[in-house]
Amino acid sequence: MTSSSETIDTQGVAHDLELRQFLAQARSRVDAELDRLLPGESVPPTKLHSAIRWSVFAGGKRFRPLLTLAVGQTFGVAEELLIRTASALELVHTYSLIHDDLPCMDNDDLRRGRATCHVQFGEATAILAGDALQTLAFTIISEDPRLAPEKRLQLIGDMSRASGSPRGMVAGQALDLDAESRNVTAEELEQIHQLKTGALIISAARCGAMIADATEHEIEAVTEYAAQLGLLFQITDDVLDVTSTAEAIGKTPGKDQRSEKATYPNLHGIEEARGLALRVHGRARAVLDQIERPTARLAAIADYILNRTA
Amino acid sequence: MTSSSETIDTQGVAHDLELRQFLAQARSRVDAELDRLLPGESVPPTKLHSAIRWSVFAGGKRFRPLLTLAVGQTFGVAEELLIRTASALELVHTYSLIHDDLPCMDNDDLRRGRATCHVQFGEATAILAGDALQTLAFTIISEDPRLAPEKRLQLIGDMSRASGSPRGMVAGQALDLDAESRNVTAEELEQIHQLKTGALIISAARCGAMIADATEHEIEAVTEYAAQLGLLFQITDDVLDVTSTAEAIGKTPGKDQRSEKATYPNLHGIEEARGLALRVHGRARAVLDQIERPTARLAAIADYILNRTA
Repeated sequence: MTSSSETIDTQGVAHDLELRQFLAQARSRVDAELDRLLPGESVPPTKLHSAIRWSVFAGGKRFRPLLTLAVGQTFGVAEELLIRTASALELVHTYSLIHDDLPCMDNDDLRRGRATCHVQFGEATAILAGDALQTLAFTIISEDPRLAPEKRLQLIGDMSRASGSPRGMVAGQALDLDAESRNVTAEELEQIHQLKTGALIISAARCGAMIADATEHEIEAVTEYAAQLGLLFQITDDVLDVTSTAEAIGKTPGKDQRSEKATYPNLHGIEEARGLALRVHGRARAVLDQIERPTARLAAIADYILNRTA
Repeated sequence: MTSSSETIDTQGVAHDLELRQFLAQARSRVDAELDRLLPGESVPPTKLHSAIRWSVFAGGKRFRPLLTLAVGQTFGVAEELLIRTASALELVHTYSLIHDDLPCMDNDDLRRGRATCHVQFGEATAILAGDALQTLAFTIISEDPRLAPEKRLQLIGDMSRASGSPRGMVAGQALDLDAESRNVTAEELEQIHQLKTGALIISAARCGAMIADATEHEIEAVTEYAAQLGLLFQITDDVLDVTSTAEAIGKTPGKDQRSEKATYPNLHGIEEARGLALRVHGRARAVLDQIERPTARLAAIADYILNRTA
C-alpha cells in the first residue's frame, strides 16, 4: 500500500527495500536448511527422495518459514533457533500441496510453472512423498538440539493441531471438497480458508513467538495478525487467479472460476474482493499496535501480500 | 508352537490362555482409548471423521499397541502410561493401510472383510483420512500429560523415524512399489519388509521399553526381539495369503501370488517359508534370554504369531 505523504512514501520505499532484502536472504537460508535436512536423491528409495526434492525445491515462496523467522526476530530471537521449525512448516505445506494436486483432489498438472509431483513421478510416489514429508517435519522438530524439550513439544503440538482435523488444514481441505458439490455462504468460505490455509500460517507465526518465549498476550496478537494475513493471502490468491496471466502465477489462470469453485471473486465479484483485501490488510496492521516491539517488518509483510502480483 | 513334553504342554496351554485374556483385554482398552481420542462422526467435517473411524474400527488386530503394552508391562510400567502411545502407533498403522489400499498403490477393495476406505468414502477422503491420522498420532503423544517432556520427544522421534524415509515405513512402501516391476532377491525382500512393516513394529516395542526407562542394553534386546517378530508376522502373513480362505483372512486369498508380488512363498516356496518362520520364531524367543524380566508373555506372543490362522 502506498501512502499519500511524500515523507512516508520515502519511508515506504525504504521499508520495501529492507523487506525484499529480508525475504531474499531468508529464502536462501530456508532453502539451504531444507537441502541439509532432506535425504539426498541418491539415497534409496531414490525415486521417492527425488520426488520429495522436486516438490520442495519447486520455487515456492517460503511464506510460512519467512513468517516464523520474521515473527521470531521481531521478538529478538536469533535465526538459528528458528530455522528448523521454519523449515518443518514448509515441509508440512509442501506435503499438503502434493496431495491437493492429486487427480482425485484438485487434479492440477502444473504448479509454479512446472509439472506437479504425480505428473512427474506417478500418483503412488506422490502420495508417499507427501506422507514422508509430513513425518519428517515432526522428526526435525523433535530432534532440534537448540530448543528445550518443552519448547519442541509445544511446537509439535501447535503445528500438528494446525495441520490435522478437526481444527486444521486437513479439515479445511475436506470441507473444501464437500463445498465443490454445492453453494457455500461467505461465512462457510471464510471458515474453509481459515482451516485450509489460515491454520498453518497462524501456526507459523505462533511458532516464531513461542520460540521467543513471548507472553500469552503477545502470542494472541501474533495469532490475530497471522489470521488476517492468511485471509489476505487467500483473497489476493483468488483475485490473481482471475486477473493474472499463466506466466505470472505458474498455473492455468481462471481455472477456479471456470470450475465454479468457491472463491472470493466468484462469491463477491472482483471489485468487492479487492475492497475486502484492503479491509483485511488494515486489520492485520492494526493488531500490530498491541505488540510493543519493532513491528515494521511485520507491517511490511502485510503490505507486500496486499500488493503482490504473483 | 507345541512342546513334546506333557508337563510343558500344560504350561503352554496355561500361557496360551493367559495370553488370550491379555490380548482380549488389551484390545478392548486400546479400542476405548482410540474412541476417546478420535473426533466424533458428528464433528465436522463429518465425512472425514466417519472415514477415519471406519478404518480405525475395522476389526484390526491392534498388534502394534499390544506390543507396546506387553513390553512396557514386562518392564513394570502401568497401562495408563502406555495406552496413549500405543494408540498413536495404531493410528500411524491405520493411516498406512488406508494409503496402501488406494487404487494407485495396492488397489485393494476389501480389508478385514469389508470395503476399504476409498471404496466406501472416495479416494480424496481416504487420502485425507490417512493424512489426518498421521497428524493426530503426533498430537496425541505431544500432549500426553502422564509422560515427561523428554520422554514424549523420544517417542515422537523414534516413531516418526520408523514411519518415514529413508529408514521407515514409507521408504519400505516405496521400495515395494519399485520391486513390483522387477525380480527381487531374498535380501531385498527382507529389507523391504523390515522397513515397510518391521520398522513400526520395532518402534512399538521400543516405545514400551522407553516409557519404562529400560537400559540401552534392554532396549537393544527388545529391538531385536521385535525385529524377529515383525519378520515372523510378515512370513506368516504371506503364507496365510496362499493357504487361507477369503473368510478367514478378510481379503481375496492368493492375490499376492497371482500378481507376482515379492512374497516369501513366491520366492522360497511354501514349505521353505514355513521353515523360515520356525527359525525366525526361535530367534525371537532366544533374544528374550537377554532381558532379566518375566518375559513369558513376550514369548507367548511369538508363539501366537507363529501359529496364527488369521
